[in-house]
Amino acid sequence: MTKPLRIGMIGYGFMGRTHTNGYKRVGDFFPELEYRPVLQAACARSEDKIQAFADQWGYASIETDWRKLIARDDIDAVDICVPNNLHKEMAIAAAEAGKMILCEKPLALNSAEGEEMCAAVEKAGVPNTVWYNYRRVPAVTLAKHIVDSGKLGRIFHYRANFLQDWTINAELPQGGAGLWRLDAAAAGSGVTGDLLAHCIDTALWLNGSISNVTAMTETFIKERVHTETGQKQKVSIDDACAFMCHFANGSLGLFESTRYARGHKALYTLEINGEFASLRWDLHDLHRLEVFDYKDEPALRGWKSVHVTDNGGEHPYMDKWWVPGLQIGYEHTFVHQVADFLKSLEDGTPCSPTFRDALETQKVCDAVLASAQDHSWKNV
Amino acid sequence: MTKPLRIGMIGYGFMGRTHTNGYKRVGDFFPELEYRPVLQAACARSEDKIQAFADQWGYASIETDWRKLIARDDIDAVDICVPNNLHKEMAIAAAEAGKMILCEKPLALNSAEGEEMCAAVEKAGVPNTVWYNYRRVPAVTLAKHIVDSGKLGRIFHYRANFLQDWTINAELPQGGAGLWRLDAAAAGSGVTGDLLAHCIDTALWLNGSISNVTAMTETFIKERVHTETGQKQKVSIDDACAFMCHFANGSLGLFESTRYARGHKALYTLEINGEFASLRWDLHDLHRLEVFDYKDEPALRGWKSVHVTDNGGEHPYMDKWWVPGLQIGYEHTFVHQVADFLKSLEDGTPCSPTFRDALETQKVCDAVLASAQDHSWKNV
Amino acid sequence: MTKPLRIGMIGYGFMGRTHTNGYKRVGDFFPELEYRPVLQAACARSEDKIQAFADQWGYASIETDWRKLIARDDIDAVDICVPNNLHKEMAIAAAEAGKMILCEKPLALNSAEGEEMCAAVEKAGVPNTVWYNYRRVPAVTLAKHIVDSGKLGRIFHYRANFLQDWTINAELPQGGAGLWRLDAAAAGSGVTGDLLAHCIDTALWLNGSISNVTAMTETFIKERVHTETGQKQKVSIDDACAFMCHFANGSLGLFESTRYARGHKALYTLEINGEFASLRWDLHDLHRLEVFDYKDEPALRGWKSVHVTDNGGEHPYMDKWWVPGLQIGYEHTFVHQVADFLKSLEDGTPCSPTFRDALETQKVCDAVLASAQDHSWKNV
Amino acid sequence: MTKPLRIGMIGYGFMGRTHTNGYKRVGDFFPELEYRPVLQAACARSEDKIQAFADQWGYASIETDWRKLIARDDIDAVDICVPNNLHKEMAIAAAEAGKMILCEKPLALNSAEGEEMCAAVEKAGVPNTVWYNYRRVPAVTLAKHIVDSGKLGRIFHYRANFLQDWTINAELPQGGAGLWRLDAAAAGSGVTGDLLAHCIDTALWLNGSISNVTAMTETFIKERVHTETGQKQKVSIDDACAFMCHFANGSLGLFESTRYARGHKALYTLEINGEFASLRWDLHDLHRLEVFDYKDEPALRGWKSVHVTDNGGEHPYMDKWWVPGLQIGYEHTFVHQVADFLKSLEDGTPCSPTFRDALETQKVCDAVLASAQDHSWKNV
Repeated sequence: MTKPLRIGMIGYGFMGRTHTNGYKRVGDFFPELEYRPVLQAACARSEDKIQAFADQWGYASIETDWRKLIARDDIDAVDICVPNNLHKEMAIAAAEAGKMILCEKPLALNSAEGEEMCAAVEKAGVPNTVWYNYRRVPAVTLAKHIVDSGKLGRIFHYRANFLQDWTINAELPQGGAGLWRLDAAAAGSGVTGDLLAHCIDTALWLNGSISNVTAMTETFIKERVHTETGQKQKVSIDDACAFMCHFANGSLGLFESTRYARGHKALYTLEINGEFASLRWDLHDLHRLEVFDYKDEPALRGWKSVHVTDNGGEHPYMDKWWVPGLQIGYEHTFVHQVADFLKSLEDGTPCSPTFRDALETQKVCDAVLASAQDHSWKNV
Repeated sequence: MTKPLRIGMIGYGFMGRTHTNGYKRVGDFFPELEYRPVLQAACARSEDKIQAFADQWGYASIETDWRKLIARDDIDAVDICVPNNLHKEMAIAAAEAGKMILCEKPLALNSAEGEEMCAAVEKAGVPNTVWYNYRRVPAVTLAKHIVDSGKLGRIFHYRANFLQDWTINAELPQGGAGLWRLDAAAAGSGVTGDLLAHCIDTALWLNGSISNVTAMTETFIKERVHTETGQKQKVSIDDACAFMCHFANGSLGLFESTRYARGHKALYTLEINGEFASLRWDLHDLHRLEVFDYKDEPALRGWKSVHVTDNGGEHPYMDKWWVPGLQIGYEHTFVHQVADFLKSLEDGTPCSPTFRDALETQKVCDAVLASAQDHSWKNV
Repeated sequence: MTKPLRIGMIGYGFMGRTHTNGYKRVGDFFPELEYRPVLQAACARSEDKIQAFADQWGYASIETDWRKLIARDDIDAVDICVPNNLHKEMAIAAAEAGKMILCEKPLALNSAEGEEMCAAVEKAGVPNTVWYNYRRVPAVTLAKHIVDSGKLGRIFHYRANFLQDWTINAELPQGGAGLWRLDAAAAGSGVTGDLLAHCIDTALWLNGSISNVTAMTETFIKERVHTETGQKQKVSIDDACAFMCHFANGSLGLFESTRYARGHKALYTLEINGEFASLRWDLHDLHRLEVFDYKDEPALRGWKSVHVTDNGGEHPYMDKWWVPGLQIGYEHTFVHQVADFLKSLEDGTPCSPTFRDALETQKVCDAVLASAQDHSWKNV
Repeated sequence: MTKPLRIGMIGYGFMGRTHTNGYKRVGDFFPELEYRPVLQAACARSEDKIQAFADQWGYASIETDWRKLIARDDIDAVDICVPNNLHKEMAIAAAEAGKMILCEKPLALNSAEGEEMCAAVEKAGVPNTVWYNYRRVPAVTLAKHIVDSGKLGRIFHYRANFLQDWTINAELPQGGAGLWRLDAAAAGSGVTGDLLAHCIDTALWLNGSISNVTAMTETFIKERVHTETGQKQKVSIDDACAFMCHFANGSLGLFESTRYARGHKALYTLEINGEFASLRWDLHDLHRLEVFDYKDEPALRGWKSVHVTDNGGEHPYMDKWWVPGLQIGYEHTFVHQVADFLKSLEDGTPCSPTFRDALETQKVCDAVLASAQDHSWKNV
């Protein structure tokens, strides 16, 4: 007999779709789980839009005031899928109402907000997680297993990029649906919170904490029409951001992200170099992990492209899907996170990354933005 | 207001899962469609197994006798997901009962059976399709668009492989759940009907009809324990099959398939070489299409890896999914086929490949197997 | 104290250049060898052309009559770099004159000629070799070492392609300098002797003898202007050739070659699939060998790209060149063959492939062409 | 009638071999050049070693005192292939003696030395060049042509890495033959002068000058046995160095180099992202250039792998070598630089990079090392 987990979704954008898809599919592929998400209610200010969303995806009801959603007795968990500047208020209110929270990344506009949010969920004792979904790409989870096994030995280098090219066009406005990511008021930052936050989350998970950073940001297009005013306004977000850092384990880090790398749509790449082995991964072929093992037979050493599609139990999550050789895609990372969240409820354990875990990423982002501001190294 | 399409599913194996997933997801991603699949009933001889399948996936009822399923008034379409030797009888019965039919590939054990099936569906006038799902990989559909545009000019070569390695182990038995593909009685043939049939279907679609063939087959492991008898028995299927052919358009074809290519799990690759351009694709990275265009600037000619993930309308089906750079996977091909089937009902057009289309593939398979038998060229 | 090996070169075309470069460079990179090639004389009918060639490359003298060259006392070894229809007569004459012979591939127009040539060199007891240079790509030599080690276990499949696109243009004439490869009178065959012969030589070396074949050839452009007559004449060579075969070890072979594969310049690829491991190589990135090892840790199995540039003794020939990571190219294969030939003189051993080894390739080519002629399987 | 260019080579190590090979081969492949290098004399302190080198490579004479070499009347050009701390003195002496100079990179230990060297060659008016050989990889030269054509539009990003792994072993000593690169006294710096200098030279050439930098260096193995003392001594070089920078054209730069990236032997990669097109290259497959062109047909946009082997005049330098599809290697870059140097003598033009050009790289290296020292941004 399964138990329902009644979801209250706030938002209906790109992330609203990916999370909802996760809720809907998890039961088909993880039938052993005790809990089953139920699409209880979806919420947004625009009644028309949220009704259309609810109809398409099958939410049982709608709300246009998120406070009402949070107040409803028939909601167990609140999913926050709105611009970053709204996370804090909603999360704290949901915690105070005793709701579980699944919050879209980044956790908050900054770590001060994040601290308040952590305090709230911890005080309330409610299960909480942040949607840093790339941890649940099977190839990335496999990388984590390999790192944890000690196979790499001492770590020397970690590097990650997140390269896109969708804002090169100067005619693209800032603000509004889908484009609030270009508006600093809504997003807090540009690529730092949007893209680098993913890279940092994975890095902290795989390689431990970051001690200090020095960063550089750039805004290539200085002014864009704002959709709310119809006027050209200064663009305040970072179009590109790079930083160098030291990890606590003594390794060096190099991170870069931009929306001006012509030819790359969502090229999140990561590489970690250890004494005995190295790993590489990229999001454009997310079902592959590249591995170099120095302990291989010397004449046959090389980079190996592991097609992470084995359903025989060797590859994380893959026993839930199809047969060897058949790849899954981007959306499955959200199904996996839902599954892990449901499992954590069964087990009474936290579902990583929790708000507290995600706060660490926020602190690195803050240090990065501060360093870019005054051009000096910053401790995290 | 959407209309229900009540599905009666026969079978619950790997294909039962992929088809069912297609039915369940299509509404979320193709909300504009008039029809919506409803999981009305699932059927198999084993009551326990089919009940478990129905419970997991949400079928409203079960049957243990496929004739009863077909007879039910509340079933609009029958999906045949059982071993190949059962296709004919079920399909003909379903057609006679006036049901639409979605039949797993290959259409039949041979083209004689296939002819009967075509006659039955055509006499009954019921919509029908065969699950040659790789036509609906967006990269393959894009290849079709490019070929149809005439960009390639005169075609010289077509080659395709389907390489696997899962039966190298001599201890693997034949027969039984999941392993009926090694049993000639159930499967009709080995890799020819299982794997080459896919390659042939795509080839006929992209490059037109095949005139004649010469083939070679091999059974590397001569005897395997049969799960029904517990005894070692002669293996009658082809473990590997290769053939050369002439296409009607004057181009040469080369096809190979095996389950003994160590290192390849599901490496379906195809390449087509034309006078002005060439295309390549492989299933291990199914979201990419490689294109060589001789009309490019001479110094910059080269093979281009197109990441077929553009949601701006440039790439087939991709406007239904996520954002550029984010790949989909294997299972989506079935969602696409369901969507196209539903659309064909709206439009009153056939959904390719129909039984009649799939019969062409069957004829090539028959010629291949006959040629392998007597070592001579055969006309198709 | 080194000993001179005085070379008499017949021909000055593409192969004349690659061989000469091999002679000139071998001493710099293989200083331990006892013999050193000396560019004693170059020979061709056109005095102007051969003088220009001799001047550019540093041959000490020229001849315009190959019989005179062969007769000279100051020539130790004759290098035959002329169209295939001239090989037999020159080689037999050189053998009778007691000269060592380095003959460009294919050995002859057919195996009857090849038999005579073998008889001649064996009767004369002169060292002899045929320039199947791809055996000396370090990655291919490494493949040979791996196969010989038994690491692959039982072999199931061998496949090789040699794909080019340089004759698609119908305006290209046949005959004349550089284009005699399109003239059956000079070349004997088209891609079979020119390209497939390479694939066959490597295959026999790596995977043992071929028992029988069935082949298909095509001439896509039926008529071309002949440079000697200025008239359009029937093209008698094969523009494309594919064949299937059985190896004596029970494995299946599939070979294809064409000059009409748009986008491929010299894409010689080979793959061998064994029970425990598989290998792949291609000429477009000739410094890499791909290896799949089933005995790897299961979760980390994958195709490994070995950059065959290790100068630490792990990789064949590479200790002679630069440092790890720095690739060599096509021309080095000829330097290696010269080095091995010189070493064989020191050791008194044959330098593979000898005429006798190359005759085996010729026999397969003959069977391929005969099969293509009458559309039936042929024993080799 | 060709003119001799009599070379006096100082040094006999890895670079001594690559340069000498360049001198010896240039005439065979660039026969149209007026000048021909003559291996007049080789020089090193150890008589045995330099005699062996001269014997192997064919130098006509030896010297054990570089001042004597420079003083010889029969030397036209001096090639400096010794540790970096010796460049300045030799170069200035050679210039004063009126010799042309071909100096191994980096130009000097620092830009102060470099300035003196520039002053000396300019005062003497002697032709001079520095062996930043990667400019002459055909794919990199092609990249330069593309950038200069304006095809990329406004440049946003430039990134380059040079990753190696050969010093991970803590038992490797510092100092001595082949290992002076680990000894700060001889090398000046570690990876900065050795590897990043290459990346910077190419970057300045392709993307113009660098305005300011912030850098981070690390020495992972703190002590190594010094070959001169036999004692463990502090390692003073940088094992790894990364820096961020602004180019004068407004683009952002990111550079990294290390000898601790397990799995990479000589992975020099570069990428440049412009408004309309992007380019990528890496040294492990140096015969390929990757190109993304936004102006391609939208559905077919993608990264194109250009095999830079066209001998039809489309690809720089390739008309001198073999036929399309046949790759050249690392050593050819030196042949090309010799050819360009000889051509510059004919034309009376400078051969880039001159000492003055190389000084710009030195200035960036100085700023990088200074920034790493005090952790702040530095203007170049």
